[in-house]
Amino acid sequence: MFLNGAYPVAHLDFYSAAIDVAKGRGMVISVDGALYLFHDLGKTPDIVLGDFDSVETTVLQKYAGVQQVSYPVDKDATDGELAIKYVLDQGCDQLEIFGAFDTTFESDQMLANVFLLALVSDRQRATGQALNARLVDHRQEVYFLDDNDLQLAGAPGDMLSVIPISRSVRVTLRGTKWELTDQLTRLGSSWTLRNFFVRETVEVAIGGSAVIVHRRTGNR
Amino acid sequence: MFLNGAYPVAHLDFYSAAIDVAKGRGMVISVDGALYLFHDLGKTPDIVLGDFDSVETTVLQKYAGVQQVSYPVDKDATDGELAIKYVLDQGCDQLEIFGAFDTTFESDQMLANVFLLALVSDRQRATGQALNARLVDHRQEVYFLDDNDLQLAGAPGDMLSVIPISRSVRVTLRGTKWELTDQLTRLGSSWTLRNFFVRETVEVAIGGSAVIVHRRTGNR
Repeated sequence: MFLNGAYPVAHLDFYSAAIDVAKGRGMVISVDGALYLFHDLGKTPDIVLGDFDSVETTVLQKYAGVQQVSYPVDKDATDGELAIKYVLDQGCDQLEIFGAFDTTFESDQMLANVFLLALVSDRQRATGQALNARLVDHRQEVYFLDDNDLQLAGAPGDMLSVIPISRSVRVTLRGTKWELTDQLTRLGSSWTLRNFFVRETVEVAIGGSAVIVHRRTGNR
Repeated sequence: MFLNGAYPVAHLDFYSAAIDVAKGRGMVISVDGALYLFHDLGKTPDIVLGDFDSVETTVLQKYAGVQQVSYPVDKDATDGELAIKYVLDQGCDQLEIFGAFDTTFESDQMLANVFLLALVSDRQRATGQALNARLVDHRQEVYFLDDNDLQLAGAPGDMLSVIPISRSVRVTLRGTKWELTDQLTRLGSSWTLRNFFVRETVEVAIGGSAVIVHRRTGNR
């Protein structure tokens, strides 16, 4: 799923490759103004979704042959939230969300996008089905854990941050420079920020709610 | 307090004026690499604080006459967290934090900075003292509310977003395009994103924890 966020020109190769990989694996969804990314890269999504208030009609018309899921402009949720609910309703259990980060000081949208992952977590809790979702850009992967575990693949030197969201969170980390075992940490603490991979695989277990940011090193 | 974040060149006038205003009102603290901002603007903070791993010695030496609060590089908290605790311990009850946002895809640091505000909220809860803190940049003000109220000054057209942090949050808004009365909203919902001021003053009351982003219109 590609949200209407920032796709830095210097990293378009990354996003182009990500679209191709996603095409081979499942459905590729362009949300609202993300259609410009597809247009610029000469790619075609499987679905275009949104209220399309951020897309010129001439661009939208070029994708007339693509399945459209449209919503009224005057609605009570962002296109991102509607897109998440749409794919979960379609039975999607592996979700990658691109374009969730902004480089233009839009912290409300960025925070809301991070917490879209909580919707997936809620659905998993309600249905018992295993669901995986993350936000991805050319440098970072962001996860939301709520009383669950995560195995992350990377390389020694990769950065890993755990940001508590509930008042108190228990953190277990294996394969990092600073390992932790069921360690209590609190909302507002920066103690678990910027740990590092020392192995190819890191294990994270969280009691409570936390956002996990896996940031690759600069040259990958 | 000026953190080691992004200070866009196009908006240096804003930050320069903010330093001058803060100088007239209380203490101005430069945290770690934010000293470059002061250096570039030809300003002098009242305190330089940090582990100074992001400042060249030659620059730091120019501020040898300024009070220094230094921490070891190898520590369990970011400079931002140490700075918050330092000012609260000094009895500060009005805190503005600049440079908390990043434009370079550093979402872990940005999220951690937002939740630094929870430390202030915790202190208020523990001591009963009224404390106000917000993150500020040239376009946005960010607040953390935990079972409390806020009055915001602005202008019709200004944007206001409420981002739930606890599982369920009750939101009351007065003076906005869409007013709400003790409305239940949940973590992950984007329903309360991007409301608008219709008066000069907006009242916000939150039951639970939420981040409030007040974003001024583009031309202010």
